[in-house]
Amino acid sequence: MLAALMNDALLNRLHELRDLSGVINLATWDQETYMPRKAEGSRAAQLGTLQGLYHERLVDPRVGEWLAEARPATPDEVAMLRVFQRERDRAAKLPSRLVKAIAEAQSLALGAWREARTQQSFPVFAPKLDVLVNLRREQADALGHQGERYDALLEGYEPGMRVARLTPVLKSLTEKLAPLIAAIEAKGPPRDPLAGKRFPVEDQWAFTMELLPAMGFDLAAGRQDRSIHPFSSGLAATDVRLTTRLFEDQPFSALFGTLHECGHGLYEQGFSAEHFRTPLAQSPSMGLHESQSRLWENLVGRSRAFWTFFFPKLVARFPTQLAGLSLDDFLASVNKVERSHTRVEADEVTYNLHIALRYELELGLVRGSLSVADVEDAWNQKTKQLLGLEVMQPVEGVLQDIHWAWGEFGYFPTYSLGNLYGATLYAAALKELPSLEADLEKGQLLGLREWLRAKVHQHGARLDAEDLIRQVTGHGLRDDDFIASLKARYG
Amino acid sequence: MLAALMNDALLNRLHELRDLSGVINLATWDQETYMPRKAEGSRAAQLGTLQGLYHERLVDPRVGEWLAEARPATPDEVAMLRVFQRERDRAAKLPSRLVKAIAEAQSLALGAWREARTQQSFPVFAPKLDVLVNLRREQADALGHQGERYDALLEGYEPGMRVARLTPVLKSLTEKLAPLIAAIEAKGPPRDPLAGKRFPVEDQWAFTMELLPAMGFDLAAGRQDRSIHPFSSGLAATDVRLTTRLFEDQPFSALFGTLHECGHGLYEQGFSAEHFRTPLAQSPSMGLHESQSRLWENLVGRSRAFWTFFFPKLVARFPTQLAGLSLDDFLASVNKVERSHTRVEADEVTYNLHIALRYELELGLVRGSLSVADVEDAWNQKTKQLLGLEVMQPVEGVLQDIHWAWGEFGYFPTYSLGNLYGATLYAAALKELPSLEADLEKGQLLGLREWLRAKVHQHGARLDAEDLIRQVTGHGLRDDDFIASLKARYG
Repeated sequence: MLAALMNDALLNRLHELRDLSGVINLATWDQETYMPRKAEGSRAAQLGTLQGLYHERLVDPRVGEWLAEARPATPDEVAMLRVFQRERDRAAKLPSRLVKAIAEAQSLALGAWREARTQQSFPVFAPKLDVLVNLRREQADALGHQGERYDALLEGYEPGMRVARLTPVLKSLTEKLAPLIAAIEAKGPPRDPLAGKRFPVEDQWAFTMELLPAMGFDLAAGRQDRSIHPFSSGLAATDVRLTTRLFEDQPFSALFGTLHECGHGLYEQGFSAEHFRTPLAQSPSMGLHESQSRLWENLVGRSRAFWTFFFPKLVARFPTQLAGLSLDDFLASVNKVERSHTRVEADEVTYNLHIALRYELELGLVRGSLSVADVEDAWNQKTKQLLGLEVMQPVEGVLQDIHWAWGEFGYFPTYSLGNLYGATLYAAALKELPSLEADLEKGQLLGLREWLRAKVHQHGARLDAEDLIRQVTGHGLRDDDFIASLKARYG
Repeated sequence: MLAALMNDALLNRLHELRDLSGVINLATWDQETYMPRKAEGSRAAQLGTLQGLYHERLVDPRVGEWLAEARPATPDEVAMLRVFQRERDRAAKLPSRLVKAIAEAQSLALGAWREARTQQSFPVFAPKLDVLVNLRREQADALGHQGERYDALLEGYEPGMRVARLTPVLKSLTEKLAPLIAAIEAKGPPRDPLAGKRFPVEDQWAFTMELLPAMGFDLAAGRQDRSIHPFSSGLAATDVRLTTRLFEDQPFSALFGTLHECGHGLYEQGFSAEHFRTPLAQSPSMGLHESQSRLWENLVGRSRAFWTFFFPKLVARFPTQLAGLSLDDFLASVNKVERSHTRVEADEVTYNLHIALRYELELGLVRGSLSVADVEDAWNQKTKQLLGLEVMQPVEGVLQDIHWAWGEFGYFPTYSLGNLYGATLYAAALKELPSLEADLEKGQLLGLREWLRAKVHQHGARLDAEDLIRQVTGHGLRDDDFIASLKARYG
């Protein structure tokens, strides 16, 4: 396909950039998994160099000439150049100096964030975070915006999305969730028959390593490791890295963490081979990427159908801990709704309140209406207001997420978009695959993976997120399916 | 120091190239340790891109202009530019296309080599090896030589060394070894009281993880993992990766493998902080690098003094396996001399015969007097002639080493140079550190590491290998110290 498209130089450059992007992901994965502690500075320099090179090779004026000469002949070729040109136009507005400064500040902030968690002290992290916020504000201004700096950052994660559109969506979601949570709480305190039990981490690990191939994750084209904060990263469609974390007293952390990250991983492994090493071998948006993880974690992973098959396997792995527990008891535990401090451990009902909190704070940081010095207090107050909880220590508060240490502002709202897109896609799957629930009850997950691969994964970045959703479901972004799925299970 | 030296652009480029080199080492380390199998092709492409970029940024004509303007003001600055200019001059002779082709052929050959080992079939590897040999011959011609292609390749590992000088050295060594081996064999068959015993690999691993800090390896600035073929790699002086391999019935594989790779690792961790991210933060030659691994593996690691302290620790780790074994018995086992098939398991007396074999074959391959199709037969015949052994399966013959799969021709002889340099340095250390042997008996290894750091490591590439040896010992390359050390222990 591609040979006909454009001159070799442009094609080679597209390949080179995808390769560099994969290597940046490798260096970042290593930083979070196996890198020795004292390598922090050298890795920051290496990542700075890689990202600087990526930027320089992307904005290279010759690429502009090659693009002007390119004559795309197929819809894929048109899409590829559209995606690439959009990325390049954004990058061209950024000086190479700023790109390198951000990369180095990210690595240093990561180290400070870890140290701050160890010391239980936000001020240890604050100066590095302040540098990052200022660099991102500078970046937003360089990218350009209509008075709303945050829009310029959001565009990097969710092309087309704007604060003016997002704020009402999150407001509406929060409003619809409030009565739902109140109704659930009115039924009495959550049942948690697993509380206080210990689940050896090696057995938890073994169970997650059973789940991955069952979901259709190819362990010859990917792997799972451990890290402080679970994440997934595609070094290539043939090389997808997942991480999880293991707590002896919180088995659901690894269990649902793996379901979540594997959802991302299946997307990365599902890109079409003919798109490898091109800009089409990626998701069009973070929100759509997140729809895949949320679909597996929540729509599949908290369903009765899924656990009908997997609960007996879990009992076999933890016979003493789960002795006497019924599937109903277990499902009550899996679907427990409870206001909590930690986003990644939050249930799917209260989860979007955590996002609303972060969205409001980072909007303030980027607008300049909130200073880094005040962000810990603001976090704690907002937690009280939205979730009714006191923050007792910063690791369960402002230091809980790695995202700001990565310098990511505008990323968090894509999680809520992921919830909405995921529920919409799953509703469509249930319609198109009449045997889906029966298959899940038999532990047969590959039919769903194939449907997702055909409808979503293989298309890569051919279409923008909402256009793809519209192509699959017949309608665009809406919260009806998400709220309906919650009501069905919790209402 | 550097600020005064040259324009920022040149300095930034030097930093960028060292960073890229570290990232290439990361991608290679990952390939050998954690990378999933199906990522072979994507990793080959990524490494090809990185090496192509490294090459392009090195030979960039602007770098030539910056070099012409540079006014080095200190001996370090002069050395730095000398080292960099030599690398650049070599690289400038190679077309970018060839550099990329070699990188991709290396990755594919690595996969074929692994598959060939699984299938016990050299022909599975041969076509990929043939591609590599031809690319390296092409490379040698592009670099230029006086009729001896191999010289052009050797220069890349051991600047200044030539076939005309090396051949007599290896011949002399082989000749001096023959009567020594005959005398040892005349004493009767080697004693091996450990034969047939099983050493759980997890306990072996734990013992090697005790050795590393005892030798002064900083585990906060490096790590050890497992791979098929042990190696060491400096991603930066603050990020040094070692690998070892564990066989239940061959405890010395991990033990001496770790001593060996840690010797390399101490060198990498010992570069001067003021040389970080510059061409001086590297060894001037592979032979000198190897001198550090050989010194720790053989001169220290096979000595009575070292085991006086560490043998009781080993007994504590393996009480049943070593029950009733005396230190003398153990030393006899450690210093067992026996003709064997496998280079990396060979004793230090017969080791250089393995190098002589490889040197002769690869010299033939590069000269064109030996074809890849004939190399397995030639290997087997030469093994018979030099070592008196039949090769029964290719993994103990032509498929045993990873080096040719890496495309490295000219690398093997640096191992013998390492033996000679290592023995010479250790003889100097014994003179300058009167308490050295007494310290080893107490398990105090840090004095030797400090001496090596002061005399060798911290200098990085300031001096060429033989000049550094001359500075430390007062004389250049010679085999007297090596042969003397063998005679002292085996004579």
